[in-house]
Amino acid sequence: MCGVVGVYNVENAARTALEGLRLLQHRGQDGAGLVVALPDGTLERKRGRGDVQSIFSDPHEWAFPGRAAIAHTRYATQGEQTEDNIQPIKSATFFPFQIPISIAHNGNFSNFLELQQRLGGFYQTTTDTEIIFHLMHNSPERDLEKRILDAAAHVDGSYSMLILTSEKLYAMRDPAGFRPLIIGRIGDGFIVSSERYGFGRVGADVVRDVNPGEMVVFEGNQMLSRKIGRTSERKYHCIFELVYFANPAETQNRVEVSEFRFRSGMMLYGEEEHPARIDVVVPVMDSGLDAAYGYHKASGIDLVRGIYRNHHVGRTFIQPTQEERRKSLREKQIPVSAMIKGKRIKLVDDSIVRGNTTKGLVKMARDAGALEVHVGIASPPVRWVCEFGIANGPVEDLIARTYEGNVERVREYIDADTLTYLSVPGLLKATGMGDAQQRYCTYCLTGEKPEF
Amino acid sequence: MCGVVGVYNVENAARTALEGLRLLQHRGQDGAGLVVALPDGTLERKRGRGDVQSIFSDPHEWAFPGRAAIAHTRYATQGEQTEDNIQPIKSATFFPFQIPISIAHNGNFSNFLELQQRLGGFYQTTTDTEIIFHLMHNSPERDLEKRILDAAAHVDGSYSMLILTSEKLYAMRDPAGFRPLIIGRIGDGFIVSSERYGFGRVGADVVRDVNPGEMVVFEGNQMLSRKIGRTSERKYHCIFELVYFANPAETQNRVEVSEFRFRSGMMLYGEEEHPARIDVVVPVMDSGLDAAYGYHKASGIDLVRGIYRNHHVGRTFIQPTQEERRKSLREKQIPVSAMIKGKRIKLVDDSIVRGNTTKGLVKMARDAGALEVHVGIASPPVRWVCEFGIANGPVEDLIARTYEGNVERVREYIDADTLTYLSVPGLLKATGMGDAQQRYCTYCLTGEKPEF
Amino acid sequence: MCGVVGVYNVENAARTALEGLRLLQHRGQDGAGLVVALPDGTLERKRGRGDVQSIFSDPHEWAFPGRAAIAHTRYATQGEQTEDNIQPIKSATFFPFQIPISIAHNGNFSNFLELQQRLGGFYQTTTDTEIIFHLMHNSPERDLEKRILDAAAHVDGSYSMLILTSEKLYAMRDPAGFRPLIIGRIGDGFIVSSERYGFGRVGADVVRDVNPGEMVVFEGNQMLSRKIGRTSERKYHCIFELVYFANPAETQNRVEVSEFRFRSGMMLYGEEEHPARIDVVVPVMDSGLDAAYGYHKASGIDLVRGIYRNHHVGRTFIQPTQEERRKSLREKQIPVSAMIKGKRIKLVDDSIVRGNTTKGLVKMARDAGALEVHVGIASPPVRWVCEFGIANGPVEDLIARTYEGNVERVREYIDADTLTYLSVPGLLKATGMGDAQQRYCTYCLTGEKPEF
Amino acid sequence: MCGVVGVYNVENAARTALEGLRLLQHRGQDGAGLVVALPDGTLERKRGRGDVQSIFSDPHEWAFPGRAAIAHTRYATQGEQTEDNIQPIKSATFFPFQIPISIAHNGNFSNFLELQQRLGGFYQTTTDTEIIFHLMHNSPERDLEKRILDAAAHVDGSYSMLILTSEKLYAMRDPAGFRPLIIGRIGDGFIVSSERYGFGRVGADVVRDVNPGEMVVFEGNQMLSRKIGRTSERKYHCIFELVYFANPAETQNRVEVSEFRFRSGMMLYGEEEHPARIDVVVPVMDSGLDAAYGYHKASGIDLVRGIYRNHHVGRTFIQPTQEERRKSLREKQIPVSAMIKGKRIKLVDDSIVRGNTTKGLVKMARDAGALEVHVGIASPPVRWVCEFGIANGPVEDLIARTYEGNVERVREYIDADTLTYLSVPGLLKATGMGDAQQRYCTYCLTGEKPEF
Repeated sequence: MCGVVGVYNVENAARTALEGLRLLQHRGQDGAGLVVALPDGTLERKRGRGDVQSIFSDPHEWAFPGRAAIAHTRYATQGEQTEDNIQPIKSATFFPFQIPISIAHNGNFSNFLELQQRLGGFYQTTTDTEIIFHLMHNSPERDLEKRILDAAAHVDGSYSMLILTSEKLYAMRDPAGFRPLIIGRIGDGFIVSSERYGFGRVGADVVRDVNPGEMVVFEGNQMLSRKIGRTSERKYHCIFELVYFANPAETQNRVEVSEFRFRSGMMLYGEEEHPARIDVVVPVMDSGLDAAYGYHKASGIDLVRGIYRNHHVGRTFIQPTQEERRKSLREKQIPVSAMIKGKRIKLVDDSIVRGNTTKGLVKMARDAGALEVHVGIASPPVRWVCEFGIANGPVEDLIARTYEGNVERVREYIDADTLTYLSVPGLLKATGMGDAQQRYCTYCLTGEKPEF
Repeated sequence: MCGVVGVYNVENAARTALEGLRLLQHRGQDGAGLVVALPDGTLERKRGRGDVQSIFSDPHEWAFPGRAAIAHTRYATQGEQTEDNIQPIKSATFFPFQIPISIAHNGNFSNFLELQQRLGGFYQTTTDTEIIFHLMHNSPERDLEKRILDAAAHVDGSYSMLILTSEKLYAMRDPAGFRPLIIGRIGDGFIVSSERYGFGRVGADVVRDVNPGEMVVFEGNQMLSRKIGRTSERKYHCIFELVYFANPAETQNRVEVSEFRFRSGMMLYGEEEHPARIDVVVPVMDSGLDAAYGYHKASGIDLVRGIYRNHHVGRTFIQPTQEERRKSLREKQIPVSAMIKGKRIKLVDDSIVRGNTTKGLVKMARDAGALEVHVGIASPPVRWVCEFGIANGPVEDLIARTYEGNVERVREYIDADTLTYLSVPGLLKATGMGDAQQRYCTYCLTGEKPEF
Repeated sequence: MCGVVGVYNVENAARTALEGLRLLQHRGQDGAGLVVALPDGTLERKRGRGDVQSIFSDPHEWAFPGRAAIAHTRYATQGEQTEDNIQPIKSATFFPFQIPISIAHNGNFSNFLELQQRLGGFYQTTTDTEIIFHLMHNSPERDLEKRILDAAAHVDGSYSMLILTSEKLYAMRDPAGFRPLIIGRIGDGFIVSSERYGFGRVGADVVRDVNPGEMVVFEGNQMLSRKIGRTSERKYHCIFELVYFANPAETQNRVEVSEFRFRSGMMLYGEEEHPARIDVVVPVMDSGLDAAYGYHKASGIDLVRGIYRNHHVGRTFIQPTQEERRKSLREKQIPVSAMIKGKRIKLVDDSIVRGNTTKGLVKMARDAGALEVHVGIASPPVRWVCEFGIANGPVEDLIARTYEGNVERVREYIDADTLTYLSVPGLLKATGMGDAQQRYCTYCLTGEKPEF
Repeated sequence: MCGVVGVYNVENAARTALEGLRLLQHRGQDGAGLVVALPDGTLERKRGRGDVQSIFSDPHEWAFPGRAAIAHTRYATQGEQTEDNIQPIKSATFFPFQIPISIAHNGNFSNFLELQQRLGGFYQTTTDTEIIFHLMHNSPERDLEKRILDAAAHVDGSYSMLILTSEKLYAMRDPAGFRPLIIGRIGDGFIVSSERYGFGRVGADVVRDVNPGEMVVFEGNQMLSRKIGRTSERKYHCIFELVYFANPAETQNRVEVSEFRFRSGMMLYGEEEHPARIDVVVPVMDSGLDAAYGYHKASGIDLVRGIYRNHHVGRTFIQPTQEERRKSLREKQIPVSAMIKGKRIKLVDDSIVRGNTTKGLVKMARDAGALEVHVGIASPPVRWVCEFGIANGPVEDLIARTYEGNVERVREYIDADTLTYLSVPGLLKATGMGDAQQRYCTYCLTGEKPEF
């Protein structure tokens, strides 16, 4: 759950990279970093904890000159919060090439611990990404590009990865295509980003996706395609990018995200054998909007803004206890009593991971006078911790796992009158792809592990 | 366009006041201030430019001890941006009472320049609020409370005002009731706020509104009612609070804000004599949500999320030119092409003031492939600059005034296929109050000036 | 104990004023402020707690345009530490003149409480300086300049004061000449400063002192002299400026500060009837350097650096307790054991106020192996709290007062083997002025109060 | 030109290490860092550019729990200013030991470029220090301690080095003893520091120096001595530590720094065959104080404070040009005209490296009215760039080298009436050590390179 941006052969690359990163902020807000290839042949880095705006508030600290840069924003999973782990990682020099190298990586190398044991040596970070440096150092190849391909051939798992040297930019995507990576053009130069939204303001034209199993080399004003020496029988695009993670205006692997979500809402109603009798559909803001509109369309039941989301409110001044953290929900998601009082409402959302948010919303709606609170979720229960780049763990927090997939017990926990989930086949069908089963990773929902 | 909070006889009053102020952030984000009555009998202040969270980020700077405090968040109009003008204003001591005094004021004294000329003397600020100090100094009354009432009797205009001394808190509302002011109870103490939402997390119970023309004195664990020595023939509640300013979960002068907005959307469709033929209704996020739902309900036309609003994005890293400032809209309001491409859409919003936002949205929708873009506004054209506390000026920015109320020319400016506004009678009807005409100020829409 | 700088008719006056203020840092490090006359006719202020460098670290916050400015650095006495009290004080406008006014004041109005009682009204600060505004407001004069002179005629005490409007700069010095105030010229413009050292880097030429009882008006490229309507029988220059406060390279009222201090050291030896038998003279760094050189010269006894002063060391990381605060001395003033071990030493310093520093140095020297520690002070015991601008209080801290001038008991307190002070006549003689008795205020040493 | 501190088996080791580092601030003010061994077995780091106080201003950023820590303050030489180069350097983990490691190093490895070429691999920094990690990784030894000793056996040059793991602290000093390193005891724990002054406030007792060629291992409450597998025929203590770098209260390799400097001043007079006829000796503050006292003692010529050093003054507000940078001297070193006007003066200082400071002082003294300005330097001309840890380069800046050791031309450059230097034999004699020639490195003065 991260976002990456690379910029090549563009003036003030640092600014363009940050401008893109800023638009990927929804992909991670726990830390961010920028590495720029300076005109003097070195790489300079600025990184920190928090969101892009606060880390890069002072231009004196990031407005490095140079025409190439990579940037990374991250969603931190527990235990890797130290600043040394914030990407991009970077080496001042790599002998015998005597060239500095930096990497920004979205994804997860599932065999990195095993590789670390095998190769030995000093590690600056505790992240999986750094193993790439060690694989490159130990590679028998003479050429730098071949060493990179060689390193990629040794890692299992998911990666959309950018590698910057003082001269070139390399963009690669794993053979199964877990995470997105898109190429755009800016004049004679290029931008590579996790989402095309990241091209936004800088006025780039979409070129194409980096293909699964491809490494694109940017050099001068050219982009050259290389094949990573590993293949995958089928694709494993992340279904959770569609359900929750990507922004709704995005197109991913030819699927329109908003349409997918709207359809999943419609299908949720379609799958309900005995839909509860309700008066109004209430979207959970903003995650459930598309699905709620779909549910409303399919059911014909009135739609109301039963929840107002306050976007101005900052952090509380009162030390949040467990109890109060639940209340904090109540500030951003405020019940509009006039709209739900005395009514049977259907809260529609995209997914339930931990269950606390939904539980809080149900209670809030009841407190505001709703007669009955029914909950509809436009995706299946989440029961496995992702090993390919989505930080949905730890395992003990997954409410559907805690209750072993027993929907009735999850309903009890969140205290709803009814609870319905969309099925896995329904979800795949909502992609609109006939062969969705061969294209998507559903490990977090089904436990079916991708094979490499 | 400001928010005020007062706290009295509550432990850690500073924290409670800031907690309330944080929830009024939508009423102004240009500056904020806090004044606390310290146990030693002095008043301490912390204030600054920007939003509440950034000004009060360091508790060492605001966590003053004391059981009474007032706070203010402001929307700055041009020309009064200096820090000295940020409220609450404050005097270290007032002879002969030898007591410190501070004021937080939401509203506008329309006769303050004339009073300044008359009274003479030194002014710390260029705001209208400070005239209260001079009126109190020049009052012939012996008693402090009477001097406050005397001062209030001399000002014209609107005010919801909090006055804090080392011993008491005074809360007053002008006779016409322009701006809201609500009293809540916290244990043995009190909270007074521009919106009941400001009571939120601190667990206060709503007591009642401060009545138009009333001053409430908080002293010990009591609240005493006083009459300001001036009356108003009728009420002049601000209609723009309902249209745009108040949060949708609020109840103002017995009107539910969200219901009002939903009804105004329904009435907008009802008033359209020849509604354009459209395929989908698209709410402008989030301001037009309720009205769009109303319009959708009344018209039966499909509703889609044609615009995605990005809440994570921070300030741009590129120096914004005029041209680029328009683009900045495009980042927060992103067209969802999949939902509007090839369609005739109706954008529904609550109001148009300057016209830039709407113009930008129309262009954005066309660029994203909309066939036709129709615009529906659930309130009348804004043609006069508010003199009672809403910063909708300067006059040359009001697009409807520029075109002298000619809707066709506004339509041309924003480049929509059609443009419809709700009428003034329609708007008043949407309040659900039979005597709305006698209760609301519509000066910005009609030019009919309140009489004092 | 403050420093003031005024700049008039000089480009980038803010920068020049701060550059001067920075060089007056030794006169006060508890707070500082700057007010600039902007080209638009308003006054802008930036102020804060701490030293000049830290308050004015960000040029965006102080680099105001404008050709006139005043600045102030202060030594805070207890009880007036709030930011509202940091000078310059300022009014946004003064009716009927409709002109903003600001004041920076070094000195003390001894009758301000009485005046406050008489005039009444609102006071922004708890400082004595603000009474000038009220006196000006209540003056019957029509003309602004005359109102200033009228205000000055009503205050008792000491002042070197700068008053800035959007058009002119006024510099005034009290009739007794307590505090210094010097005029310099920069091209067609002017600088006024507490010390000529404040002219330093900006390349100003010394013009002359502002005379006691004079107000100099700067207007266009002229300086005009006015007489304050009050006189003093004699002068009361502050003797403590010579003893301790002024920098040693300064000339004050025609006395060279360094020569005065050297002579006071020589006279200290000369007055000692039975000087202790000592091996080496050790200057207390840096305050006692000149006096120690004088003592060494007069006595012929060897001089050594027995104390090393560390200028790089910052604040401690350990929470300072009372005990530890004494140790903090030990870091900046380090005993050079090699120079004093086994020796009878004479510590020479300029003055003792509270006694803690000297007590700490004596202990430190003993711990480092000194056989005997004798202390010589090149000024008399300080027994009265200054009422004219030197913050040497509170009274209970004056060690010589605590022991009612009993030198033997002070010696016991600081635990020295012997302690000698210079006499009052000796001190006056060290000025080199035959009529010193008629020129200097010695209230803190003698209790003889100046008469107005 | 750096300072290091290590703390072992002491509660709140971070605080103690910073407290020590703060007292080594004079050894480098360009950057500083801290690494703490956390209770969870990881190492945490905080570092930055600037001085200790500003980097570690917020305790939330450095007050890590843990009983062992190392810290480093640096004097940056050009070209290695990036934050990645600020020490301590650190590895999150070292396979196969699976232990984090950090190094703080004062000194210089003269063969590190050659070693880098030989070993290859990724380097996080461009400093010489990191080669230790690579040597340890490539060492055939099984044991961690032996790998450290093995690494040390492969580097040439100077080092006083601290290595911290999650369990132990290693302190080592090169066989020639270039840089100091001293052990102190705090209760059951230890502190190791570049100067005993660094023990200051924390109340440690001096144990002894780390011996040249020794590694001391701290483990539990023990200290164990190991021999580095390399020896040096003779010692090469840095003579410049005595001349300039160490604080005057220090004892280094059994020489009292202040006595050395006093003697060097006496010998400077003694060596002058035809001393100039002068009226007063003027110490350059504070570097020349001891030598000036020695010169004054030997010559019997009057001593005066002809220069006042201002310790309060901060950075200038005026952009410093080359010209102005010279003036900046004038603010901190102010001529006391009253003391030198019309006199023939002898400025005495410890050394001349670049010549600008002295040139500026001479001009300043002439401007202030000195009749003649003679300069005496209590050490020989500096003609070679140090390769063992003193940042006196680059070579083109060494004024004595520029003029090929021609004293007459240096005198012309600084525009003094006469210029005398102390001779190399005189300098060695001032140490008071009969065999000084076998104990000190004089490479910067003589060009005689140490042999390893």
